Amino acid sequence: MQAAEDKLVARIAKAFAPKHLSRLTLGVGDDAALFTARPGFQTILTCDWFLEGTHFLPGKHPADSIGWKALARAVSDVAAMGGQPKCFLLSLALPKRLTGTPKGLAWLDDFLAGMSRAARRFHCALAGGDTTQRPEILINITVVGEVSTGRAVLRSGARPGDLIFVSGTLGEADLGLELVRRKKRTARHDARILQKHLYPQPRLALGAWLANHNLATSMMDLSDGLSSDLPRLCAASGVGGRIDAADIPTPKIPETAPNRRFDSLMRALNSGDDYELLFTVRENNAHRIPRSFKGLKVTPIGEITRDRKIILQQPDGTSQPLLPRGWDPFRK
Amino acid sequence: MQAAEDKLVARIAKAFAPKHLSRLTLGVGDDAALFTARPGFQTILTCDWFLEGTHFLPGKHPADSIGWKALARAVSDVAAMGGQPKCFLLSLALPKRLTGTPKGLAWLDDFLAGMSRAARRFHCALAGGDTTQRPEILINITVVGEVSTGRAVLRSGARPGDLIFVSGTLGEADLGLELVRRKKRTARHDARILQKHLYPQPRLALGAWLANHNLATSMMDLSDGLSSDLPRLCAASGVGGRIDAADIPTPKIPETAPNRRFDSLMRALNSGDDYELLFTVRENNAHRIPRSFKGLKVTPIGEITRDRKIILQQPDGTSQPLLPRGWDPFRK
Repeated sequence: MQAAEDKLVARIAKAFAPKHLSRLTLGVGDDAALFTARPGFQTILTCDWFLEGTHFLPGKHPADSIGWKALARAVSDVAAMGGQPKCFLLSLALPKRLTGTPKGLAWLDDFLAGMSRAARRFHCALAGGDTTQRPEILINITVVGEVSTGRAVLRSGARPGDLIFVSGTLGEADLGLELVRRKKRTARHDARILQKHLYPQPRLALGAWLANHNLATSMMDLSDGLSSDLPRLCAASGVGGRIDAADIPTPKIPETAPNRRFDSLMRALNSGDDYELLFTVRENNAHRIPRSFKGLKVTPIGEITRDRKIILQQPDGTSQPLLPRGWDPFRK
Repeated sequence: MQAAEDKLVARIAKAFAPKHLSRLTLGVGDDAALFTARPGFQTILTCDWFLEGTHFLPGKHPADSIGWKALARAVSDVAAMGGQPKCFLLSLALPKRLTGTPKGLAWLDDFLAGMSRAARRFHCALAGGDTTQRPEILINITVVGEVSTGRAVLRSGARPGDLIFVSGTLGEADLGLELVRRKKRTARHDARILQKHLYPQPRLALGAWLANHNLATSMMDLSDGLSSDLPRLCAASGVGGRIDAADIPTPKIPETAPNRRFDSLMRALNSGDDYELLFTVRENNAHRIPRSFKGLKVTPIGEITRDRKIILQQPDGTSQPLLPRGWDPFRK
């Protein structure tokens, strides 16, 4: 007789491709997993909440997007160190309706399929996890990655004079969230921003390239928004920064919207979930950073300063302090 | 200006002793932590939920016990592999009242103090984590450990004829839970079972000794109860087991209780949260297993069988199938 929890674990294990990574010596089904680090590599450890109501809405977000994104956002932290993901642990708390009814199990299978697709895309094998029952869907993901010893790019290495870069376009995920909330999907442009919100792509190739070529002096991923995350990078490095409003890669706002330009900049500065990379480069290395890396836009947006303030410079020459107005779950 | 979430992270980091482990190259405060595995060792990965209402009751359990136990139960999975914990990730979701009021912050500090005490005891450093706000307290812990390559004890190595052992006394934690629920603490015996429920001790020394001396053919920790966990070990090994009711180390039940003997056996078989070790040993090695290991009782309780059934043998010679009646969050 198999316990109900064991049946669920078997269902989860089945949804993921056979372990394709020799680094993972022992996967799902024992007390713990065994991972064998390669000589010359350090192990990267990171975890992320993904919670119903806080991070996703099961009535609005497709199940397979919830599965994909739960893993992708944790993998993004590995990209931000310049590493590659190797395996992950999945902690899953599920309501009774999802494990006890055919409709619920169909949702669960879609969710697992989305996560399994992400696992294959990012070469990140399921190693284990924990399951329990709760009234709401709770997800926690731990990703284990690797990076050549000494090559990891930390937040703390930015120095005055370094140039500040970002990948991609900022604020698009937030526009995608708005479409999801309104359940409004029309133009082709919408498909792109929806994709960005539902199926974010951690910038693994760019992050690893910057780390392996020793080009980034500091790096992090933009999960809470530039105005909240840039001060974190600067604080870790003991520096300040000045960014140019005109240089920030802002999203395209529908022509009918009022205050388009202002709205676009505010979203790029203050909205989260983009999972783009924010990094700094020595001035004399800046010419080695392409404006497009394998199709991904890379944009210089400002400069690291000795003065610890974070400043937003306007096109008219005036400037103002950039206040952290990104996502903060504890803001009053 | 520091974001509210950053203040909370700083409070958490401060509660833990400075990183005392050279294996942890980079701890709290970056996108991820960096762990450097020792040559000749494998990395153990495990995670555990610890959720308000499901696993603990903030009105009944002391805050420092919640902190201790959240870490201890995850560390127990490392003990069950025969390894040693090295570092952990703490995912914490907290209600507003705990971060926004002096009384709440006092609770939070007690919680962190209990976890920090466990971290020092188990030599397991805080490496990172994730924080967010929720109406209920949600905790998820990932523990990273190490074990000499090839020495980890899996669930799958039990063979017919092996003897089955358990450490400690089974069912005590459940008696402790009952005292906590009733808020009744009287006799000296109560203090011991309360301690076992509130501050469980992962059996790290015994687990490592068994692994390093190659004595255990299979091992797991008893978190859900013997009647649920023994079938898991047997299923992983493709074997069955027969245990003797008379040999099971049952808890002492107050003399005034009705059906003392039956109640005591049922608790030992079907209640969870003991975090004792269940392991098997080749018959010709059984004499090498002491009855007491550094003060911890070790008891042979039965034998692995070729027949895949799980059988409970009674003192009168009769026997019956042992049904999994331990903790199962998904039982209907």
